[in-house]
Amino acid sequence: MELSFDEKDYASCCGSSRFAKEMVIASPFSSLQHSISVARNIWFNKIDVNSWLQAFSAHPQIGQTHSPSVASQTSAQWSKGEQSTALATATGSSLQELSEWNAQYRNKFGFVFLICASGRSTDEILAELKKRYTNRPIVEFEIAAQEQMKITELRLAKLFSSKESISSTTNK
Amino acid sequence: MELSFDEKDYASCCGSSRFAKEMVIASPFSSLQHSISVARNIWFNKIDVNSWLQAFSAHPQIGQTHSPSVASQTSAQWSKGEQSTALATATGSSLQELSEWNAQYRNKFGFVFLICASGRSTDEILAELKKRYTNRPIVEFEIAAQEQMKITELRLAKLFSSKESISSTTNK
Repeated sequence: MELSFDEKDYASCCGSSRFAKEMVIASPFSSLQHSISVARNIWFNKIDVNSWLQAFSAHPQIGQTHSPSVASQTSAQWSKGEQSTALATATGSSLQELSEWNAQYRNKFGFVFLICASGRSTDEILAELKKRYTNRPIVEFEIAAQEQMKITELRLAKLFSSKESISSTTNK
Repeated sequence: MELSFDEKDYASCCGSSRFAKEMVIASPFSSLQHSISVARNIWFNKIDVNSWLQAFSAHPQIGQTHSPSVASQTSAQWSKGEQSTALATATGSSLQELSEWNAQYRNKFGFVFLICASGRSTDEILAELKKRYTNRPIVEFEIAAQEQMKITELRLAKLFSSKESISSTTNK
């Protein structure tokens, strides 16, 4: 089975337009694993630092579910799903603290705090934010890119499973 | 002796407005060495990656002497001085090759090729460009930042020596 998607689909996984374009060029993929290995190569070796910043800016601030420059409705929905544990464990005061630290983080680093939030509580996310806040900007930039790649991998899996379920429905 | 300059002077050394502001806040400096040590800390630990990109964009493409977003007349003049060896050793064909590689570099990395050019011939610069072109974008981003810091140090020295010569003239 060969799978491919359009630019909009890949942009929902990672909001860099250069990433999405390169994925289309590299497709079709023989498997999810194949697409992930290509995506990693594009993300870490081929696209530039401006593309990383563009991808970061497509994320809502953690603890919130919308971003001013969010790439797509799909991306917004997935972001909400990824943060479901955090949102379920959040209290008013922890959300307030998270919001304040997010602002401080953005002020220091110039981009939103990015973390693969799946399965993490608000307290865990906050602890991680405080720890990472002490990093040098260039170090933190690379960590954020690694977190973006984790998010991209989870989203590619969702994309592929949606296609597979459509194709298995069609084949019935 | 205590030395301080205004934001415009620091911006001629390094075209990041955040860098220039932080230098003003940290001044006056007891010596050139003191100012360089503060500048290094600001550049590598305090300002964000967007500020690095802003500083890079203030440089002309190597082999040329003007940039569309050049920070100041002083910066443009210094840039010309720093490239004097390169310009003196350049032939028409080496400049042409440099220009083509510059375009390729910018296309891959999203910013201008940055090198502390003082004392380097066109051939040396071209060899370095070709070598660095193979780097991963994040690796190259950090190397460019180190080259920017070398340029900043040379320019701070020029700034301090201009002030000292003015003050020694005044004291006569």
